[in-house]
Amino acid sequence: MDLSRQYAEARDAQDPIGHFRARFHIPDGHLVYFDGNSLGRLPLATRDRLLDAIEREWGGDLIRGWDTWIDLAGRAGDVIAEGVLDVAPGEVILSDSSSVNLFKLASAALDANPGRRVIVTDDDNFPTDRYVLEGLAQARGLQLRVVPTDIDEGVDPARIAAALDDDVALVCLSHVAYRSGALADMVAITTAAHRVGALTLWDLCHSAGSVPVPLRQSGADLAVGCTYKYLNAGPGAPAFLFVRRDLQARLRQPIWGWFGQRDQFAMGAGYDPVESIERFQVGTPPVLGGYAVLEGARITAEAGVANLAAKSAELLRYTLRLNDAWLGDRLTLATPSDPARRGSHVTFHHPQAWQICQALKAAGVIPDFRTPQRLRIGLAPLYTRFVDVWEGMARLRDIVDSGSYEAFEPALGRVT
Amino acid sequence: MDLSRQYAEARDAQDPIGHFRARFHIPDGHLVYFDGNSLGRLPLATRDRLLDAIEREWGGDLIRGWDTWIDLAGRAGDVIAEGVLDVAPGEVILSDSSSVNLFKLASAALDANPGRRVIVTDDDNFPTDRYVLEGLAQARGLQLRVVPTDIDEGVDPARIAAALDDDVALVCLSHVAYRSGALADMVAITTAAHRVGALTLWDLCHSAGSVPVPLRQSGADLAVGCTYKYLNAGPGAPAFLFVRRDLQARLRQPIWGWFGQRDQFAMGAGYDPVESIERFQVGTPPVLGGYAVLEGARITAEAGVANLAAKSAELLRYTLRLNDAWLGDRLTLATPSDPARRGSHVTFHHPQAWQICQALKAAGVIPDFRTPQRLRIGLAPLYTRFVDVWEGMARLRDIVDSGSYEAFEPALGRVT
Repeated sequence: MDLSRQYAEARDAQDPIGHFRARFHIPDGHLVYFDGNSLGRLPLATRDRLLDAIEREWGGDLIRGWDTWIDLAGRAGDVIAEGVLDVAPGEVILSDSSSVNLFKLASAALDANPGRRVIVTDDDNFPTDRYVLEGLAQARGLQLRVVPTDIDEGVDPARIAAALDDDVALVCLSHVAYRSGALADMVAITTAAHRVGALTLWDLCHSAGSVPVPLRQSGADLAVGCTYKYLNAGPGAPAFLFVRRDLQARLRQPIWGWFGQRDQFAMGAGYDPVESIERFQVGTPPVLGGYAVLEGARITAEAGVANLAAKSAELLRYTLRLNDAWLGDRLTLATPSDPARRGSHVTFHHPQAWQICQALKAAGVIPDFRTPQRLRIGLAPLYTRFVDVWEGMARLRDIVDSGSYEAFEPALGRVT
Repeated sequence: MDLSRQYAEARDAQDPIGHFRARFHIPDGHLVYFDGNSLGRLPLATRDRLLDAIEREWGGDLIRGWDTWIDLAGRAGDVIAEGVLDVAPGEVILSDSSSVNLFKLASAALDANPGRRVIVTDDDNFPTDRYVLEGLAQARGLQLRVVPTDIDEGVDPARIAAALDDDVALVCLSHVAYRSGALADMVAITTAAHRVGALTLWDLCHSAGSVPVPLRQSGADLAVGCTYKYLNAGPGAPAFLFVRRDLQARLRQPIWGWFGQRDQFAMGAGYDPVESIERFQVGTPPVLGGYAVLEGARITAEAGVANLAAKSAELLRYTLRLNDAWLGDRLTLATPSDPARRGSHVTFHHPQAWQICQALKAAGVIPDFRTPQRLRIGLAPLYTRFVDVWEGMARLRDIVDSGSYEAFEPALGRVT
């Protein structure tokens, strides 16, 4: 194992998608950014597009801009559908936040399965997913069946299957776990859910744009995802949702907004929703965010999800090798050891992970802390280089070797 | 009555808030923009703020930007609370779209009044409001009692009062009607609703930033509003919601997202919402939109709602005088004749209103068409001048005098 910086540089020189980094705004060359899985970087095309949308379109076209903007959510959705999720145009649209979309699609799924009284999720699902489902279960007097998951190993399909019976209306899980980066087996779980007549709703926040998403192969029913991580659409950009084509016309979207209405501007009496994906829109969609998603998703589609996933896997393997060589067992792997079961981030356990995170930030490395006592390193493949991994891991090694992290405040009780 | 352009210029010269126009990006001096009540203009401060938020904050600070962004929805909400709605800080927050917020607050109101089986609205309410309420009523097996309203005269408090009884859980109406601009009597209606134990939910989309909103004087319970009209926050910018302080902790917000969670980043098991206005947030809020609201609301607050309303009233009176002088009875007023019952836009009826709208646009005047057969003229007071009214009405006069609008396509059946 070559531990030199030159090795990392050589890997970058051979990287078939390495040139995509030049299409991002990267003002600080010293910074090692390991958090593109929380907030992706700014694409130059997005900056230019937003400036144009602000000044020329909003400022100049004013209300006439809506001639262009009215189907922006669908156009961006189509890029995500074809270029990121490998499903058909018309199966994905931008709308609201991931949380609101989860509420809409989970509610629709429950209405489509009347009489069934159980929602299945797991205890490692992202908090907002668990809360949204808990709220729906409470409002409807249903049971939320929370399957225990090993937070380092991720969702166990056998445990999910064991929780399924013909009283289950909906199975809702994350495709890639937000802490460990563990990849759930979408095909096995969807198959098991369908066997008992349940619908599946997948949270793709940590997978869209970083790993292939087998919506089509699995026959998954519904999905939501955010766009500010691997799709690089900026803080709070609108989320997307996926509804398999054959389900669209028969699902009851619970929030009957005018952007789902047939002949919207007739402003007629009585809600009469379209039968297509626009049925899952609600209110006036955010235009700046919509453009940011359009541009971000285009870059992802251009690079190709297979290439992105391959590079992620290589970056991740390299991270683990450097960790093994430099840090030994001082940081414990909190991500599946099987490469086929990983997304695009890697997590380590350390009892003082919070302090190590603070020390890394002070040293110009931005990872993320996650409860409990975990250091998360995101390897967003569009702009993360091997040399970034080398630099970041070297600084991490120095911090752990020197014990300099002890000088930082321990975690507050609430985030240990 | 002086019908000269010079008279209009003289009025502009005396306008105490005339200087605010210079704070907007207005690239086309020929254009007369009468649609600021659909999409407000771009403030220069907003353009600058967005450029900075895109490049420096998102592009440079990356995830660290959330230290600044995390309470942006509340900060912008406070500016709207104090500077626009005259309620207390902590009673307003940005979140989602108006439609989603209507759903959230209407749902919360219904939960707070269990056993009551009726929602009251009127048939002139904005479509999305009617649809959202219809959806909620259907889901819960409640009655949506739709009070007939004269679309030119607006909500009649006596008719609303006659629809109230102790089975009514919620009264949901628009403060300013989207077609006529008629101002509803918030104090009388809220008082009548409270007398029977119902909660009130007001849609402020067409009033926030243009007329005083008597939330406090009326004791209104709940409100929502958009920010892209008189608050000039741009297309699809996030909406706001108001929940009277004493109601906040006891209302059940139906979409249990992580931005309402106490100790959000502890990511704990079980939804445990804060007791304050943040309880009504759901998912990750849009940052660019949040900044645009912050800047737009600040300008409105600086100009002062009383000044804005006074100028609107003067612009509206001037519009009507020019109409009387130049167009006689060819355009029929479709807005209350009592100035105290008007918002900041004026509507005219004409059997060929659609074609007249198209002709106006071709002549560089942007009004709006509204069903049925109505021409709507918005007089956003922050940047609309008396000379704009003069120019726009002169071009309208020429179009109607000449019959040139006949050359434009008649309305499609669906929007007559």
